[in-house]
Amino acid sequence: MTHAATGTRPSIDRDRLLGRLAALAALSPLEGAGSCRLALTDADKAGRDLLCTWMTDLGLDVRIDVVGNIVGVWTAGAERPDEAPVLCGSHIDTVATGGRYDGAYGVLAGVEVIETLAAAGVRTRRPLAVGAFTNEEGARFAPDMMGSLVYVGGLSAEEALDTVGIDGARVGDELARIGYQGVWPVPAAAPHAFVELHIEQGPVLEHEGYVIGAVTGVQGISWQELTFTGQSNHAGTTPMHLRRDPAYAAARVATFVRELARELGGRQVATVGRILLHPNLVNVVPAWATMTVDLRNTDAERLREAEARLAAFVATIAREEQLSLSVRSLARFEPVDFDERVIALVESTAIRHGWPTLRLPSGAGHDAQMLARVCPVGMIFVPSHRGISHNPAEHTDAGHLHAGADVLLDVLLELADR
Amino acid sequence: MTHAATGTRPSIDRDRLLGRLAALAALSPLEGAGSCRLALTDADKAGRDLLCTWMTDLGLDVRIDVVGNIVGVWTAGAERPDEAPVLCGSHIDTVATGGRYDGAYGVLAGVEVIETLAAAGVRTRRPLAVGAFTNEEGARFAPDMMGSLVYVGGLSAEEALDTVGIDGARVGDELARIGYQGVWPVPAAAPHAFVELHIEQGPVLEHEGYVIGAVTGVQGISWQELTFTGQSNHAGTTPMHLRRDPAYAAARVATFVRELARELGGRQVATVGRILLHPNLVNVVPAWATMTVDLRNTDAERLREAEARLAAFVATIAREEQLSLSVRSLARFEPVDFDERVIALVESTAIRHGWPTLRLPSGAGHDAQMLARVCPVGMIFVPSHRGISHNPAEHTDAGHLHAGADVLLDVLLELADR
Repeated sequence: MTHAATGTRPSIDRDRLLGRLAALAALSPLEGAGSCRLALTDADKAGRDLLCTWMTDLGLDVRIDVVGNIVGVWTAGAERPDEAPVLCGSHIDTVATGGRYDGAYGVLAGVEVIETLAAAGVRTRRPLAVGAFTNEEGARFAPDMMGSLVYVGGLSAEEALDTVGIDGARVGDELARIGYQGVWPVPAAAPHAFVELHIEQGPVLEHEGYVIGAVTGVQGISWQELTFTGQSNHAGTTPMHLRRDPAYAAARVATFVRELARELGGRQVATVGRILLHPNLVNVVPAWATMTVDLRNTDAERLREAEARLAAFVATIAREEQLSLSVRSLARFEPVDFDERVIALVESTAIRHGWPTLRLPSGAGHDAQMLARVCPVGMIFVPSHRGISHNPAEHTDAGHLHAGADVLLDVLLELADR
Repeated sequence: MTHAATGTRPSIDRDRLLGRLAALAALSPLEGAGSCRLALTDADKAGRDLLCTWMTDLGLDVRIDVVGNIVGVWTAGAERPDEAPVLCGSHIDTVATGGRYDGAYGVLAGVEVIETLAAAGVRTRRPLAVGAFTNEEGARFAPDMMGSLVYVGGLSAEEALDTVGIDGARVGDELARIGYQGVWPVPAAAPHAFVELHIEQGPVLEHEGYVIGAVTGVQGISWQELTFTGQSNHAGTTPMHLRRDPAYAAARVATFVRELARELGGRQVATVGRILLHPNLVNVVPAWATMTVDLRNTDAERLREAEARLAAFVATIAREEQLSLSVRSLARFEPVDFDERVIALVESTAIRHGWPTLRLPSGAGHDAQMLARVCPVGMIFVPSHRGISHNPAEHTDAGHLHAGADVLLDVLLELADR
């Protein structure tokens, strides 16, 4: 590495990083330090404008593609500017009640890395680049991770642009409206590697006392919606043995999935986050119950086992209670394994810095899992206080934000010079 | 009985009864033969006007009290018109999606009984009377059974008149607006006896092949609202052992109450009709869950046991899952026993008619339970097809409606001549 000649590695300017996070959040503030920056809204445009200004001020070559992904390439800092860049980044869109770190941290830390290296006079062999992908959250337009999926060729630009959101708006129209339908083609040329720095959005690192997570991959996800239909009846006049109660079936499923996760063990998680009863009245046996089951596992085989066992249980309880049953898959992703060399590089770099470091999978989806289709990928996690995310109360200690960004800097340098 | 001299008992005119039920329903029709006649609305006024017209045409002495209860007394048919009348009746208000039989059947069958007796030249010792009590359903104004509760002195007229409904309207204002705030005082003089003819609103009679139910009393009711508060977290990133999941607790309670009803057996029923999760999203462990539990039993002791066992379970599950718990009583009524002589009279009368007859408690609340505070009371049930009520699909076979009205006629004659 060019900078190795100086004998010391540059370190991120913590206050400048925190300042950028605060400045971005301040554009669309929510009570409690959060932000509402739904994809392709005016708030998203304001965030994009600020990001592009920072990139341009650093002399990055800002490339906006046809679905609005923003990639700033530091060609001026590269000895071989035409080689595939080492890309970092994440997204700057948020859920409706977002925090200030989810996504934004990875993008702004990437900007900080380049500013820090430029200030230190460091040059890399391959160019570094930082990207912000369109609509990672999927809170306004489905699917989530839309921009990175298009970036790697997993979804056509036409299909993405024709997507209609929960408010009836069309992605293509909104992109044009806010001025972010660019000319760079998709799928993009594959980067040399991709590294995403992100808050954990879970409690594991904090709970176990770690500062850095070397992310091994992303859990496979299976989302199902179950609807049981029975017979609505009076709660006082209908003897128990004559009931066909969909709320009871939903409750049985919700207790079963907890047991299922316990029995499968390992990385299996199972959640019932949504239950709707109709008519949802104190004295009426409901006519129908709709519920969701969210199953995740890093092991593809075990995830399929969980799905099979759930399906068997659901069929049994519907038969026992004489209910009709409708099952709909809402989402299904196989587990994604990250590149072992990048995982090991993140781990060894963090340990060299002296940070307690844990290898762990990501329970949430990230743009990195899409990039993993076309290049070696890794992720760096920092702790989320109490595991809270998608919430204005989302918080990560400044020291941890600093540590993660320093690890990102070193990992990017190593990858760019390899 | 005076009519015994003729050797035959008069029988209700089935077509005229069905015609009156249809005419009342047609004033505020809902798809599928139902009605929306919420208490003290314009629709209720229209129904009251029609009822009063029928009563007046029969020569009844129509008495409207200060909370709008309508009682038509057939003084002309009584040998001793000043004695306490034998009262029958029910209510004509409905829930928002009501059928045409709940309540209205008991009132209009009472009108039919008097018209039939008058046409047959029958006279009774005590006067017969038919009443329609204000706001039995409680769908617009709480509590339900308001009019009959005031009628027997269980609630002051002032408090009832000051009640504000779900739409912000005040009972007193609405009564005055529709012209049904009468001058007869409450509490009223106690009737000699009260008999309420009603559809079962449950599936038992139909399921077991009975035509007439001799109602033994009304189940005690305990309604509770439970709120569990935990920690909202990401469904993918939060390991199972770090969860504090209120949806899981709610599901455990919903499965527990089914088990509780099975273990207690007898007349115990238990229902979870309402569950609300927040934020109710597929990939979020909920922050809180609110649910209702409806417990009913004809045995006061067993109902208390059910409540105690529920309370213990709820506390245990909250502790195990590290949730905070809030419990609110929404309603609590002790079981009501009807008068054994009236029950036996209903039963023997129905059997004499040749109808398969079952003694059973009422699972739903009725005006009769209020009247039971001041006089001997009984109820007659006829089957509800599939147990469906509070629904435009509510249905009872014409033959069963006829049978119930004939039993009412004979029971009223017997009570009036005793």
